[in-house]
Amino acid sequence: METYQHMKKEELLALRERLAAKYEEIKGLGLSLDMSRGKPGEEQLALSMGMLDTINSGSDMKNDTGVDIRNYGQVDGLPEAKRMLAEMVGTDPSQTIVFGNASLSIMFDAVSRSMTHGVMGSTPWSRLDKVKFLCPVPGYDRHFSITEYFGIEMILVPMTENGPDMDIVEKLVKEDETIKGIWCVPKYSNPQGYTYSAETVERFARLEPKAKDFRIFWDNAYAVHHLYAEEEKQDQLPDIVSLCREAGHEDMVYEFVSTSKVTFPGSGICVVATSEGNRKEFLQHLKIQTIGHDKINQLRHTRFLKDMDGVREHMKKQGELTLVKFKVVWDELERELDGMGIGTWTYPRGGYFISFEAMEGCAKAIVAKAKEAGLVLTPAGASFPYGKDPKDSNIRIAPTYPSLDELEKAGQLFVLCVKLVSIDKILENR
Amino acid sequence: METYQHMKKEELLALRERLAAKYEEIKGLGLSLDMSRGKPGEEQLALSMGMLDTINSGSDMKNDTGVDIRNYGQVDGLPEAKRMLAEMVGTDPSQTIVFGNASLSIMFDAVSRSMTHGVMGSTPWSRLDKVKFLCPVPGYDRHFSITEYFGIEMILVPMTENGPDMDIVEKLVKEDETIKGIWCVPKYSNPQGYTYSAETVERFARLEPKAKDFRIFWDNAYAVHHLYAEEEKQDQLPDIVSLCREAGHEDMVYEFVSTSKVTFPGSGICVVATSEGNRKEFLQHLKIQTIGHDKINQLRHTRFLKDMDGVREHMKKQGELTLVKFKVVWDELERELDGMGIGTWTYPRGGYFISFEAMEGCAKAIVAKAKEAGLVLTPAGASFPYGKDPKDSNIRIAPTYPSLDELEKAGQLFVLCVKLVSIDKILENR
Repeated sequence: METYQHMKKEELLALRERLAAKYEEIKGLGLSLDMSRGKPGEEQLALSMGMLDTINSGSDMKNDTGVDIRNYGQVDGLPEAKRMLAEMVGTDPSQTIVFGNASLSIMFDAVSRSMTHGVMGSTPWSRLDKVKFLCPVPGYDRHFSITEYFGIEMILVPMTENGPDMDIVEKLVKEDETIKGIWCVPKYSNPQGYTYSAETVERFARLEPKAKDFRIFWDNAYAVHHLYAEEEKQDQLPDIVSLCREAGHEDMVYEFVSTSKVTFPGSGICVVATSEGNRKEFLQHLKIQTIGHDKINQLRHTRFLKDMDGVREHMKKQGELTLVKFKVVWDELERELDGMGIGTWTYPRGGYFISFEAMEGCAKAIVAKAKEAGLVLTPAGASFPYGKDPKDSNIRIAPTYPSLDELEKAGQLFVLCVKLVSIDKILENR
Repeated sequence: METYQHMKKEELLALRERLAAKYEEIKGLGLSLDMSRGKPGEEQLALSMGMLDTINSGSDMKNDTGVDIRNYGQVDGLPEAKRMLAEMVGTDPSQTIVFGNASLSIMFDAVSRSMTHGVMGSTPWSRLDKVKFLCPVPGYDRHFSITEYFGIEMILVPMTENGPDMDIVEKLVKEDETIKGIWCVPKYSNPQGYTYSAETVERFARLEPKAKDFRIFWDNAYAVHHLYAEEEKQDQLPDIVSLCREAGHEDMVYEFVSTSKVTFPGSGICVVATSEGNRKEFLQHLKIQTIGHDKINQLRHTRFLKDMDGVREHMKKQGELTLVKFKVVWDELERELDGMGIGTWTYPRGGYFISFEAMEGCAKAIVAKAKEAGLVLTPAGASFPYGKDPKDSNIRIAPTYPSLDELEKAGQLFVLCVKLVSIDKILENR
C-alpha cells in the first residue's frame, strides 16, 4: 500500500474531495460524542452497584477493630482499608494513609504543603527563587496543572516504551538543586499506556538528587487496570517503595493509588504509600486539615472488594468491558490508517488510553475538525505542560465512555479527520 | 448557702478530706469516660441510619438534572445538594459550592490558598512579613490550629453573650492591614453556646477593614442544631452573606455549613456560601485540586433529608436526645456548685457544648484530676490560641457522647474535681 506522502498531488486532491464529502455527511448527522476524558462506561459502573448494598440501615457499623466508624476518629484510615489498598500497591499497611475520594487531592496537597512548609524541614518552596519539576511527556494533564498552579517550572523529559528517559532524569536531578520532583504514571501510563521497565524503576530508586527535598510523585493510577485476564498479558511493575528503602532512599517517593476507576469515579477511596518519615509529615498536615475522611465509604469498599483476590476478580470484569472498546478503536485505526504514514498509535495492555501520534503540526487541526463534526477529544497539547505539545502531534484517545455504537462512529470520524488534515499538511509541505 | 471563699480554713480542710475520700472511691472504680470532643452519641447516629438505605444497587443513579452522578463531573456539587444546603445556610444556591465530608478542610484550604496565591489578586500571605487573625476567645481549637499551622499570629478578642467584642474588632481591622481574617462560630458558639446578636452581625457586615484581602471565616457549624423544638426557644442568626452584600462588602465573608452533626461525623457533606467573586476563586483552586467530591453521598443526603422541612424534622429528634444529656450536666452542676462561688457555666439553646468557668488558675488542675480518675475532658486551654488560656479558667464540657449512665458518673466526678481543686486554690491564696 502506498503512503500518503508518496501519492501524487492529483491523487491527494481527488482523495481529499471524496473524504471531504464523507466528512460533511457525518457532520450532518449532528453527532454528540465524548472521548475527552478517561471516564468509565455505564456497563463498568454497573459492576460496582453491589457495593451500595454492603452497608444499609441494618448493617453492623463497627469495623474489624470494634470501632463505630460512623463517628469521628481513625484519621489515617480504617485498618481493613489500609490492608486492602496496601495489597493493591504491593506494600505494607503500616506504610499507608487512606484518604478521601481523589488521589489527585493528596498530590495537590503535598505540593501545596511543600510550598508553605517545605519537606521534612527544608526551606518552604514558596521562599525559593525557583522550583522545578520533571515532566515525562506526553503525560497526565492534571499533574501538570498542579505544578503550573503553584508556579513551578516544568521541564520536559521524553517518554520511551520503558518509561522516562532515565539518562536525562539522572543527570538533571543530580545537577540541579531546584528540581524538587517528578510526575510519574508508572503503569499503563497516561496517555501512552507504557509501563516502566524493571530497570527504569531500579534507576528511579537509585537516583541521587542534589535536592534533599526531591520527591518522586508515583501516581500508580492504573495499578490493577489490566485489559487481559491472563497474567502473561499483564504488565508487572516492581514496588518502588521497597526498592527506594533498599537503596537507602526511603523518603524519596510518594506512591498514590485510588479506586476511582475500580468502583466509582468521584466516590472511591485512595491511599498514599510512603516511608515512616513522610507518613508523619502527611499526618501532621492531615490532622490540621480535616476531621478525617469518609470511613463509611472505606468500609463499603472493603466489604465489597474484600481483598486483592476480590479486586482481581472485579478488575477482570472491568478489563473485559474495556478491552472491547479498545478493540473497536484499534480495528478502525488499523483498517483505515495502517501503512498510510500519517499516524501511529499505542497498544497498551491496561489503563484508559490509546496515544495517537499524528504527523507533526496536525494534532490541533485534527481535534478541531473532529469537534466541528460533534466528536469531543482531549484538547491537543493537553498531555504536555502548559498545554503545549512542541510537535503538535499527540492526541489522547479515551475509548471507555462512549457506547460501542457511538465508539464506531467516533472511530470513523476520527480517522477521517486524520486523513483530511494530513493531506492538507502534506500538500502544504510540498 | 455559704461560698467556699467565705468558709473558714478548718471547714475547708474538713470538707476537703471528705471529698478526697469520695474521689479516691470513684477513682477505684476504674472508669473510662470521654467528654473530650463534640461527638454525637450512639442514639443520635441511629437517627441517620435510614440514609444508608436511600441508595442501593437498585437505585436510579441519575440526579434531578438527568446526570449519572456515579461518574466524573459537576465539581461544584449536585444542584439538589446546593439547594438543600443553601436553605440550611439561609442563602441562594447560586452562591454555594458543595464540598466533601469536612467543612474544616474548606477553611484550611482557603487559608492555604491565601498563603500561596493571595486573595483575589492580593499579595500571597506567605510573602508578607506578618499576617494576623482575630480569634474570639474562648473559641474552636481546630480553627486556631489552622492559623497556628500557617504561622499566622493570633490576636485574642473577648467573647460576650452577644458575640465578639465588636468595639475591639472594628478598631483592630480598621487600623491594622496585617489582620487578614477572623474566626467566627456565630451560632451556638463553641464552647459557650452564644449566638451573635443581630447587632453584632450587622456590625460584622459593616466592618471597614484596612486589608482588602480581609475575610470573615463564618463557621456556621451549628446552624440547625437547636436543643428545643419550640421556635421561640431557638436562637436566630441573620444571614451575613446578604448583609455583607447590602453593605457593599459582598466579598468579605466565607460562610461554612456541614452535615457532620446532622447525619454522620466524617461522612457528611458541606458547603461554602459566598459572593460570586469568591466562588470563582474557590472553584479555580478546586478544579486543580480534585476531580470533584463524592456525589453519591450528596445524593444520599438529599434523598434522606430532602429539604429544610426534612432537616428541621430530623434535627428536632437530634435536639431531644442532646437536650437530655445537657440536662444531666446542668442538674449536677446546679445541685453541687450553685452559689458556691467556684464556677459558672453557660445555658446554650443549641450546639454541642457547655462552657465552664472555674476560678482563675484552676482549669488545668481540674482537667488533670478528672483524667486521673478516668474522665477525659478537652484539654484545658484548648479553646484558646496556642492552647493557652490566660486565666486558666475555661473548661469545655461536651455532654453528647457518653451514655446517660456514664454522663451521671462523669458529672459527679467533674464537680468533685472542681471542688477539690478550688479548695486548694483558695487555701493557697489565703
